[in-house]
Amino acid sequence: MSKLVIVGTVAFDAIETPFGKTDKILGGAATYIGLAASQFNADGAIVSVVGGDFPEEYIAMLKNNELDVTGLEVIKEGKTFFWSGKYHNDMNSRDTLATELNVLENFNPKVPENYKDAEVVMLGNLHPLVQLSVIEQMDAPKLIVLDTMNFWMDNALPELKQAIAKVDVITINDEEARQLTGEYSLVVAAQKIMEMGPKYVVIKKGEHGALLFQGEDVFFAPALPLEAVFDPTGAGDTFAGGFTGYLAKTGDYSFENMKNAIIYGSALASFCVEKFGTERLEGLSKKEVHKRLKQFQSLTQFDIALT
Amino acid sequence: MSKLVIVGTVAFDAIETPFGKTDKILGGAATYIGLAASQFNADGAIVSVVGGDFPEEYIAMLKNNELDVTGLEVIKEGKTFFWSGKYHNDMNSRDTLATELNVLENFNPKVPENYKDAEVVMLGNLHPLVQLSVIEQMDAPKLIVLDTMNFWMDNALPELKQAIAKVDVITINDEEARQLTGEYSLVVAAQKIMEMGPKYVVIKKGEHGALLFQGEDVFFAPALPLEAVFDPTGAGDTFAGGFTGYLAKTGDYSFENMKNAIIYGSALASFCVEKFGTERLEGLSKKEVHKRLKQFQSLTQFDIALT
Repeated sequence: MSKLVIVGTVAFDAIETPFGKTDKILGGAATYIGLAASQFNADGAIVSVVGGDFPEEYIAMLKNNELDVTGLEVIKEGKTFFWSGKYHNDMNSRDTLATELNVLENFNPKVPENYKDAEVVMLGNLHPLVQLSVIEQMDAPKLIVLDTMNFWMDNALPELKQAIAKVDVITINDEEARQLTGEYSLVVAAQKIMEMGPKYVVIKKGEHGALLFQGEDVFFAPALPLEAVFDPTGAGDTFAGGFTGYLAKTGDYSFENMKNAIIYGSALASFCVEKFGTERLEGLSKKEVHKRLKQFQSLTQFDIALT
Repeated sequence: MSKLVIVGTVAFDAIETPFGKTDKILGGAATYIGLAASQFNADGAIVSVVGGDFPEEYIAMLKNNELDVTGLEVIKEGKTFFWSGKYHNDMNSRDTLATELNVLENFNPKVPENYKDAEVVMLGNLHPLVQLSVIEQMDAPKLIVLDTMNFWMDNALPELKQAIAKVDVITINDEEARQLTGEYSLVVAAQKIMEMGPKYVVIKKGEHGALLFQGEDVFFAPALPLEAVFDPTGAGDTFAGGFTGYLAKTGDYSFENMKNAIIYGSALASFCVEKFGTERLEGLSKKEVHKRLKQFQSLTQFDIALT
């Protein structure tokens, strides 16, 4: 059991999908990552910032999920980061209706003293300078995972490349991998990203699953085919939380074990999309997860004898 | 080892991709299906029609691949079916430049006497009435597989539904499954198609792999991630040929064995797209196929102990 540092937003989201809409509910990358990682009883700490408007009950819920929140700064006079979006009918694309940075604008992350020796660091989507600051605060992590998005490629590419150069794993979606490298083929794009620094590249393809690359090796995990996707918000972060939570729990950072971590991440993400926001992840039982992992096994495992 | 009847076009194709273009080359669904099935030394017979312009050497090549061609009618005074298409840069969409039905217009398929007792029938994409005529000529096949496309949904839906009602397996791509059922979710679409007759539904998603459904069970095979797709023509038919060829060879039509068949189909399709037309499939060695199957294993197999 290794310690896990989770950096990312803790936020309010307002979401509209073809199935309905929400008022301001709990959201944010670090929230989803933390809830997913908590499935492994990983010793995880959230490093983030919220405003005085952030409900005590949300913080209590994170604590109940055995997440350390001493690195979750509360700026009493500030307001919590807010995002609002509307998904199109196919659920694969969305419009951002509002983004209010608020306390995130001057976020200065502070890793708690007793987590500076953590083996695993999960850098959720944030300004690359914030991600770099966290890397600098760590003693000697064995695995640093970075998630990012096209926004930083458009607005902070030099800083993003600096951060990418310092991490072991990057998680990125297919369109972003193409934008970052100018390559259409995901195989070629992954090779180019590895040349930027990371030893492992995870390319997330949403409903089409996820690819893990290391050198010439590739592993693929499908998304679970679902009758309906209710709300995709947080699925990528839940995937990242399952991935890093499993690795922190097992302390085995080999490619072979990362295959399992990818499957755990995919399984947890398949729960996330079943309800609005974090609702499905809160109180998710180990029994439910176990059952879903068996579904992934029967979905992907075959028996051709090859010698 | 069971007999396999393969019905479909044997044709000329002229193909343009971002990598180059061809003159009239050998094409057609039955050609690709036959070449793929020949990997298993299945006792396969092609039922199709060509014109007097069809080169002897192509027929000789099919024979060399141990395919029976007594059901391949040659209409001396007629011309062979011709299709011409141009792929877009992303290789996922294409424009049809020309379709000349020629001898296909009045195609009256004749299953050779000694193949009427075949256990497996692969009905390649053709007018559903032609597919129905073949079904009627068979004694008591154990597995009938039907491939089709949106053209027949637009132009011969009642006949298509008649054919679908009489088969065990349908292979169809994702957009066509949605068109046929009016359902966006492929899980729901597959359920609706099973209600139309087939016990098994295979949904082909191109570069995103293929799904196999039976009742509540699902299996997924990814496409092999490739550095470049040179020419996608025939990939779906190659997949179908690998699928049925493997099933005919093993004589095991269970869901568990269909998983293996789907993997074989995907592996063979991954060769097809590496060169123009049938070039890569002709003379493909068992050693190459074996190596690729191992790639599929390492791409998809993981080791989470679940009890």
